[in-house]
Amino acid sequence: MSRLTPTPADKFSFGLWTVGWQGRDPFGDATRPPLDPVEVVGRLAELGAYGVTFHDDDLIPFGASEAERAAMISRFRAALDAHSLEVPMATTNLFTHPVFKDGAFTANDRDVRRYALRKTIRNIDLAVELGASVYVAWGGREGAESGAAKDVRVALDRLAEAFDLLGQYVTEQRYPIRFAIEPKPNEPRGDILLPTIGHALAFIGELEYPELVGVNPEVGHEQMAGLNFAHGIAQALWHDKLFHIDLNGQNGPRFDQDLRFGGGDLRQAFWLVDVLEHGGYQGPRHFDFKPARTENAAGVWEAAAACMRNYLILAERARAFRADEQVRQALRDSRLDELAKPTAADGLAALLADRSSFEDFDVEAAGERGMAFERLDQLALEHLLGTR
Amino acid sequence: MSRLTPTPADKFSFGLWTVGWQGRDPFGDATRPPLDPVEVVGRLAELGAYGVTFHDDDLIPFGASEAERAAMISRFRAALDAHSLEVPMATTNLFTHPVFKDGAFTANDRDVRRYALRKTIRNIDLAVELGASVYVAWGGREGAESGAAKDVRVALDRLAEAFDLLGQYVTEQRYPIRFAIEPKPNEPRGDILLPTIGHALAFIGELEYPELVGVNPEVGHEQMAGLNFAHGIAQALWHDKLFHIDLNGQNGPRFDQDLRFGGGDLRQAFWLVDVLEHGGYQGPRHFDFKPARTENAAGVWEAAAACMRNYLILAERARAFRADEQVRQALRDSRLDELAKPTAADGLAALLADRSSFEDFDVEAAGERGMAFERLDQLALEHLLGTR
Amino acid sequence: MSRLTPTPADKFSFGLWTVGWQGRDPFGDATRPPLDPVEVVGRLAELGAYGVTFHDDDLIPFGASEAERAAMISRFRAALDAHSLEVPMATTNLFTHPVFKDGAFTANDRDVRRYALRKTIRNIDLAVELGASVYVAWGGREGAESGAAKDVRVALDRLAEAFDLLGQYVTEQRYPIRFAIEPKPNEPRGDILLPTIGHALAFIGELEYPELVGVNPEVGHEQMAGLNFAHGIAQALWHDKLFHIDLNGQNGPRFDQDLRFGGGDLRQAFWLVDVLEHGGYQGPRHFDFKPARTENAAGVWEAAAACMRNYLILAERARAFRADEQVRQALRDSRLDELAKPTAADGLAALLADRSSFEDFDVEAAGERGMAFERLDQLALEHLLGTR
Amino acid sequence: MSRLTPTPADKFSFGLWTVGWQGRDPFGDATRPPLDPVEVVGRLAELGAYGVTFHDDDLIPFGASEAERAAMISRFRAALDAHSLEVPMATTNLFTHPVFKDGAFTANDRDVRRYALRKTIRNIDLAVELGASVYVAWGGREGAESGAAKDVRVALDRLAEAFDLLGQYVTEQRYPIRFAIEPKPNEPRGDILLPTIGHALAFIGELEYPELVGVNPEVGHEQMAGLNFAHGIAQALWHDKLFHIDLNGQNGPRFDQDLRFGGGDLRQAFWLVDVLEHGGYQGPRHFDFKPARTENAAGVWEAAAACMRNYLILAERARAFRADEQVRQALRDSRLDELAKPTAADGLAALLADRSSFEDFDVEAAGERGMAFERLDQLALEHLLGTR
Repeated sequence: MSRLTPTPADKFSFGLWTVGWQGRDPFGDATRPPLDPVEVVGRLAELGAYGVTFHDDDLIPFGASEAERAAMISRFRAALDAHSLEVPMATTNLFTHPVFKDGAFTANDRDVRRYALRKTIRNIDLAVELGASVYVAWGGREGAESGAAKDVRVALDRLAEAFDLLGQYVTEQRYPIRFAIEPKPNEPRGDILLPTIGHALAFIGELEYPELVGVNPEVGHEQMAGLNFAHGIAQALWHDKLFHIDLNGQNGPRFDQDLRFGGGDLRQAFWLVDVLEHGGYQGPRHFDFKPARTENAAGVWEAAAACMRNYLILAERARAFRADEQVRQALRDSRLDELAKPTAADGLAALLADRSSFEDFDVEAAGERGMAFERLDQLALEHLLGTR
Repeated sequence: MSRLTPTPADKFSFGLWTVGWQGRDPFGDATRPPLDPVEVVGRLAELGAYGVTFHDDDLIPFGASEAERAAMISRFRAALDAHSLEVPMATTNLFTHPVFKDGAFTANDRDVRRYALRKTIRNIDLAVELGASVYVAWGGREGAESGAAKDVRVALDRLAEAFDLLGQYVTEQRYPIRFAIEPKPNEPRGDILLPTIGHALAFIGELEYPELVGVNPEVGHEQMAGLNFAHGIAQALWHDKLFHIDLNGQNGPRFDQDLRFGGGDLRQAFWLVDVLEHGGYQGPRHFDFKPARTENAAGVWEAAAACMRNYLILAERARAFRADEQVRQALRDSRLDELAKPTAADGLAALLADRSSFEDFDVEAAGERGMAFERLDQLALEHLLGTR
Repeated sequence: MSRLTPTPADKFSFGLWTVGWQGRDPFGDATRPPLDPVEVVGRLAELGAYGVTFHDDDLIPFGASEAERAAMISRFRAALDAHSLEVPMATTNLFTHPVFKDGAFTANDRDVRRYALRKTIRNIDLAVELGASVYVAWGGREGAESGAAKDVRVALDRLAEAFDLLGQYVTEQRYPIRFAIEPKPNEPRGDILLPTIGHALAFIGELEYPELVGVNPEVGHEQMAGLNFAHGIAQALWHDKLFHIDLNGQNGPRFDQDLRFGGGDLRQAFWLVDVLEHGGYQGPRHFDFKPARTENAAGVWEAAAACMRNYLILAERARAFRADEQVRQALRDSRLDELAKPTAADGLAALLADRSSFEDFDVEAAGERGMAFERLDQLALEHLLGTR
Repeated sequence: MSRLTPTPADKFSFGLWTVGWQGRDPFGDATRPPLDPVEVVGRLAELGAYGVTFHDDDLIPFGASEAERAAMISRFRAALDAHSLEVPMATTNLFTHPVFKDGAFTANDRDVRRYALRKTIRNIDLAVELGASVYVAWGGREGAESGAAKDVRVALDRLAEAFDLLGQYVTEQRYPIRFAIEPKPNEPRGDILLPTIGHALAFIGELEYPELVGVNPEVGHEQMAGLNFAHGIAQALWHDKLFHIDLNGQNGPRFDQDLRFGGGDLRQAFWLVDVLEHGGYQGPRHFDFKPARTENAAGVWEAAAACMRNYLILAERARAFRADEQVRQALRDSRLDELAKPTAADGLAALLADRSSFEDFDVEAAGERGMAFERLDQLALEHLLGTR
């Protein structure tokens, strides 16, 4: 093993709410005491992270006075400075308080929608002040449990209106920040609007400031729908819309597990790191996980360290995979090089005139060619397992 | 019950491959003999359908000579004329022959991609000749079982290239036809490109002729990913991209069941019909189902008739639901009317200046409001069950 | 509609924790205030329920003194008497307190296991005192998130030990009570022991008092694994082990939704009621649901009433289905009568000697028979929808 | 790496239908020519397998004459002898022919049930003749797509009757063979009887010859229901009923993928090998996979070799994991040793009298203990990845 100790250059970041999760779940009370954000900053820096992220209410308890708020921000900023930790991203808690029980930007109640926008804008100010360049929007409560409770087309109008207002705001303020929508299919709502990366990407195309909005996909969220996460990330990159990413683990369609990175589907984790490392993504490697509820503080920090270490292991394996001459040959044997060639560089007319493409094409012979994918995949597996 | 007998005005259509399915599955041989397309035309007309659709190879066996092809088309057209049946849609079989085992428009082999385009173009000519206005593209083989076998970004380049060439072709030919992409998450490939409605909608936004391309969602395909089909259709309508639809039934994440319409998730079928009937969709109600393999010919036609009857039952129930004064009151009690109002018709500046939206907002009181969704949903259920 | 108003003869019961759920979920705080058990008793009686059930901690807050406990029990009993409500079942909360974070009867820590047994036994005494004849055991925390954290075979030894001790206890006490194990595949643990009805039934066969232990299946729990709930109930009845049942709704593999009965998979709800009503089950129809978090108190009680009403609607539909002469003919056409005949009433030797069973069997002709299942299922659907 | 080349001592076996799969799927024709069973025998022996298994119709085409049958068996036996390959298991094809479209042992038609039993018995004779000690029963067609089409309780009667007749037969014949039921939740039927390991284990307990019947779980089948396969195997071992096993790969709830072993869920594959190697299982390691349809013959044999190699890699990793002193310490830190101690070795009375178990138990202090599972799981992951 070459280098498995994280450094700030690796751009690892964690949410305050991740290591700070107290273990409250639908059937159980908290198993751990709250963590002071200032302690989190120190610990993360010590472990090698470069950044910390937050929801407004993670940093400043809901309902705090202006004075309390200012004091907390000041303490937090001092800790960031002391430890040279960045705040690359921030986001809004639009889901914990009962007022958001039917949504925030798409709540049926107009006053709730207005409140949600104001709460968001207030925290955008803070995010920019702290240096964040990405503002995540997870609309976990934007959805419904029953068919008539939400008119989806009308709700999408409201959701677009919200992002247009936010786009106008940061444009007018000349804030150097972009938005990243985080899709999720369900939980806590029965069905959530913009359930996958694809739905979010399509939605963005209808906005007034599409260039300001991208996606923040989370491993487990796509896997809850049984979708291939690395494929989803590849499509987001193809659209040039991967503004941020949430790394964790999940075991297929079930409740949102938020396992430490490296937990859950290991093979997809490998292909994910491969596409992140070799696909041009330059943003933070952000962990949005929950240390198992069975753990005490020691377990929390071991899990956080393991997230980063596992990323580094997989990155090393992916590099070795791509550098292996046998792999390169196998990729050629599987004709990946041919996939990279345009199908009709010669244009439509030439294609239509080319008898070898249809009339004279030996379709039976072509059908007998083997693709050599089993060998290629076995090479990948052995790189993942470290047997090559 | 008022009117449950289908007429052409209902715009019901069926694929040749649906009633013609012989019952071959991954573990079993055909249980029914082939059906003559001409017989299908007569039967469908008799049952009250207005249209029939086809893959090229459904109508003309793969490898038929030009003369055989011409004869088959001629017979088919005569049958259509005799029974006044339309061909509102056609599509290409790019999945049965071994040559497509690694895909068609995104096969690693360039000659396979060229062949696939030519096969498609050939059948577009026929589709237009027979009057079709929608051309469906289901890329069932565009995908992979293993991580390195397909570079997804490169494959999306090829897929976009294919739709750009097809768009150029129908534009140059001045064909009055549009394309509809049919998403599916998996099966027969381990993972398929453009796995959901959302991914397809996003992809379309990157094409050269985006106005020529929409979606053809299939009930079961979205439900295989655990997604809410009615929500997906609502988003497709919101983007003005619902060019066609495939109706059938499915029981959640498992193999593609293609149950008759009315089978599978009955509640989603109700909400689907509600959004189709009241959401402005004017296209065919196309059934893409497989009569159970246990059935003989009698069962096949009973199942086909039941698809249409079930649609009509649900349409009637949806109409009654929307017309019920108690439902209207319940919708108001759930503040659906408020969702329809812009959140900030007064503009961003006014929102920011409005102290009642944030500083003076009684968030606790707002959090205590009930949404009355349980009552609303119970009213819907009772309309569905016919107890109101 | 004939009779859709519940009466005690219908044997409907509800858990204190169902209508009393305050709406706390993994991402949100409580949206409703606590309900007094005494109020619940009165309301349920008024709505037509015959019984109320409880976890120890629903009735007596965790950590209450003996005096407080006695006072609460006394108030509760007085309310039961005043409203003639029964307590047909009780159960133990072995999941909320942090001490159970790694399980109760299978916690790695022996002292936790001993505590869990004592907590259970204490509440069994109360259950019997209040007249319960079924004691439910949901082992929601008996499981693991990671592979080495639980040795499953050893854990099953501990689980069997626990049920053997409990069996010994009620036997020695001559308590007229039986246990019902409630299976669940996951949530809150990553994977739970005895994940389905089948695993629980098999486990029971290894116990020292198998006659004292049956199952308490919950609709949503089996559906979270994509299993057919009515099939599972049929198998439990076949084993004579359906001691109790938890009715609610779920939309396939995802988080545990606990929708009101009638929500979720409506078709399976119909077949479930059919098998309960016609399969010899005599126990309570117990609702274990959570009124949507969006609701206030009015919505809670409407949802509770709807659970019972929906059961009665489905029961009526199932009766009509079974009584319909066309259905009876369809069942014969599908040869359900033949399924009821032994395959070899004549014994093995006769079967082996019967040339018509193999050597002379016309397998091709037999393969061509249609099963007429589509017609039969359409009849069922139309009974469900009330169009017959 | 120490020893990754398979030898007969590893007890690897393959079905004729695995490497012989021609690639026919629900949407596509065969991509590979048939393989001669004699060639398969030679190739498997060469690769290091010890056994080959078969369905009757894999070896002898359906409908072959007695003379053809005898000739084929003779050729096959000669090949086995020549290559010293064993036949540890055989099974019946009760799913391909249309006659089985509604099931075999539970077909509604009595004559089909009788035919299925005779077909099975005929192949049991051959299996025993060829030395098989396990006879697998996969009831892939025993199920239904719709609710009334199968009375599950009655069908279970027929299924039990079938196994009782088969048990009687092998007992009377003094055949040294046992049955292994292979559960599957769905596909090809909408829902299959005995959908999981648990349901099959419970069913066995009701048979007349329970000692003759165990289970043959298949990796992908349990994972199609989202269940933890290693947990299921552990429970089967706990019941002493793991008579055989089908190894392959699957990516969660979707169609049955039958990936080569090592494909799909890699983490579960690791824990599976761990429990097989250290849980006392002595039977064959049988691969029931399908080489990807994209492959030609070279890919088929590479995939077969990879199945064995991957098993050996994982076995080595599991051994190293169990031998690692840090792992042993971590297991103690997670109190796995305590799980192995009886909860109440001192008996029920002592437990009830032990105030430290309840009255004096410091539940808050106990709730604060960390379980150290994250560290333990990270150690496991690093063994799997080969970084330790």
